[in-house]
Amino acid sequence: MVYDLIIIGAGPAGAAAGIYASRQKLNVLIISKDIGGQVSKKAVDIENYPGFEKISGPDLAKIFEEQIRKNRVEIVLDEVLKIEKPAEYFIISTKSSIIYEALSVIIATGADPRPLEVEGEKEFIGKGVSYCSLCDGPVFKNKIVAVVGGGNSGFESSVFLSNYVKKIYILESGSEIKADKENQELVLKTGKAEIIKNAKVLKIKGDAFVKFLTYKDAATEKENKLDIDGVFVEIGYSPATAFVKELVDFSEKDEIITDHETYQTKTSGLFAAGDCNQGKYKQIVTAVGEGAKASLAAYEYLQKIK
Amino acid sequence: MVYDLIIIGAGPAGAAAGIYASRQKLNVLIISKDIGGQVSKKAVDIENYPGFEKISGPDLAKIFEEQIRKNRVEIVLDEVLKIEKPAEYFIISTKSSIIYEALSVIIATGADPRPLEVEGEKEFIGKGVSYCSLCDGPVFKNKIVAVVGGGNSGFESSVFLSNYVKKIYILESGSEIKADKENQELVLKTGKAEIIKNAKVLKIKGDAFVKFLTYKDAATEKENKLDIDGVFVEIGYSPATAFVKELVDFSEKDEIITDHETYQTKTSGLFAAGDCNQGKYKQIVTAVGEGAKASLAAYEYLQKIK
Repeated sequence: MVYDLIIIGAGPAGAAAGIYASRQKLNVLIISKDIGGQVSKKAVDIENYPGFEKISGPDLAKIFEEQIRKNRVEIVLDEVLKIEKPAEYFIISTKSSIIYEALSVIIATGADPRPLEVEGEKEFIGKGVSYCSLCDGPVFKNKIVAVVGGGNSGFESSVFLSNYVKKIYILESGSEIKADKENQELVLKTGKAEIIKNAKVLKIKGDAFVKFLTYKDAATEKENKLDIDGVFVEIGYSPATAFVKELVDFSEKDEIITDHETYQTKTSGLFAAGDCNQGKYKQIVTAVGEGAKASLAAYEYLQKIK
Repeated sequence: MVYDLIIIGAGPAGAAAGIYASRQKLNVLIISKDIGGQVSKKAVDIENYPGFEKISGPDLAKIFEEQIRKNRVEIVLDEVLKIEKPAEYFIISTKSSIIYEALSVIIATGADPRPLEVEGEKEFIGKGVSYCSLCDGPVFKNKIVAVVGGGNSGFESSVFLSNYVKKIYILESGSEIKADKENQELVLKTGKAEIIKNAKVLKIKGDAFVKFLTYKDAATEKENKLDIDGVFVEIGYSPATAFVKELVDFSEKDEIITDHETYQTKTSGLFAAGDCNQGKYKQIVTAVGEGAKASLAAYEYLQKIK
């Protein structure tokens, strides 16, 4: 069967695209590794999505999922390995070896946590190194941890971790903190965080578990050591877009370049919405808006080619 | 006092902009004629805003309002008559003669219903001619009405009106219905609607109240008469943007032209989000996304000039 539209990813952008496609009576399928994307892994409550004063990430992800299902959009849990367009329709190959066909495709795969790429990082994944404070935070009760990254993700993770840990070092490689004022105040209120700017992490060391990390102070060039039990890496995300490389152009950050109105890529019928595209602002509320726009544009594309 | 940011309008785009500005600790004010914009006047339940399977327009508008207020954003009910930028900040004049000053402005005034501009239309406003089925529908219990406009607004109004009226004529001036498949099916299910394509309304007549309208069949050039008790005009919206004409460029449809990423107009520090800009897709979910983006862009602008 050739679908009208296949949406890859089931975070906010994919959910919105699915809801809109279903209401246009498209024959639509969502293929995703998980449901909810980054939202389902958010460590602190969401307070900036219009419609909810305060809601946990997993709860909002659950609401999105229910709404997708109520709209009778089929969801398959699988990983897309490749998209090709040899002729008039797209061929989508997945990890489970199933091949799907579609007349149009929306990529809404979001982004994966970016690794530090320092010595010891890979070795200690699951043994003190984590990319998900919500998943792993409770393990660090009364421990000392480092959060690497002074943006919103780092500060939000620190607020969440403060419910468990004894002390948090927030390491920011630059000379300025990029987190929102609101997040900075919340971190200050925990009374548990020490912010270290100009801190470039060099290596992570330990035995069975992480014991310490070293960093260079970019201002003094001095190397310092911090005794810690865990490292939470929060230095941003890389778009999860390698599987589509032959059909799209990328920004310097490997984000898919699209038209800003329709979110169509350089390949007709192929769209990209949410954190995987070159958009400057990456929020839940911006992802749903882009997902809906891409879905309406895909509908128009289908009307033209059918 | 000079505000950091003044947002004009309190529909979905203005609400999202307000929530984001407050979280950035901006000194922000919303000036609006009403709260909720078009959402608060929607005749049928909203089923395509991610996060709510089904919610009435007034209920969603209420939730947005509460969220704005919880974020301690001040709202003033007033109408903006003019925006000027004689020097480094914007001067905003209102109907109540109060003058406001701000370093940046987001226009989120949405759009007003577009009139038919036919004989009898103005004369019978409130006497059978309406632009708001939610407001006026219940008055037409067991009556016969015409809905002018075959797009989503016309079809959604017809579904709502079918709860009250005996019969609905839907008049579409073109040869094709533009409403969603979903809305077309819902109208069909009411069993009360007769769709007339190629129908160009000529005039509306009556005495104390509307009695009939006439239209020309664009295919046959024949003039026809329909006996009706009410006319609901649903032929789209015109952006409510005349007050800002010296500072922005307009599209052919009088929509404000902006950058697609930051929603900044040709005047630095002046942004436009939601239905009042040139965006192709005008949905609640796209308006909130644009409002949030404009607010984040305004914050960046303020960081630069302060």
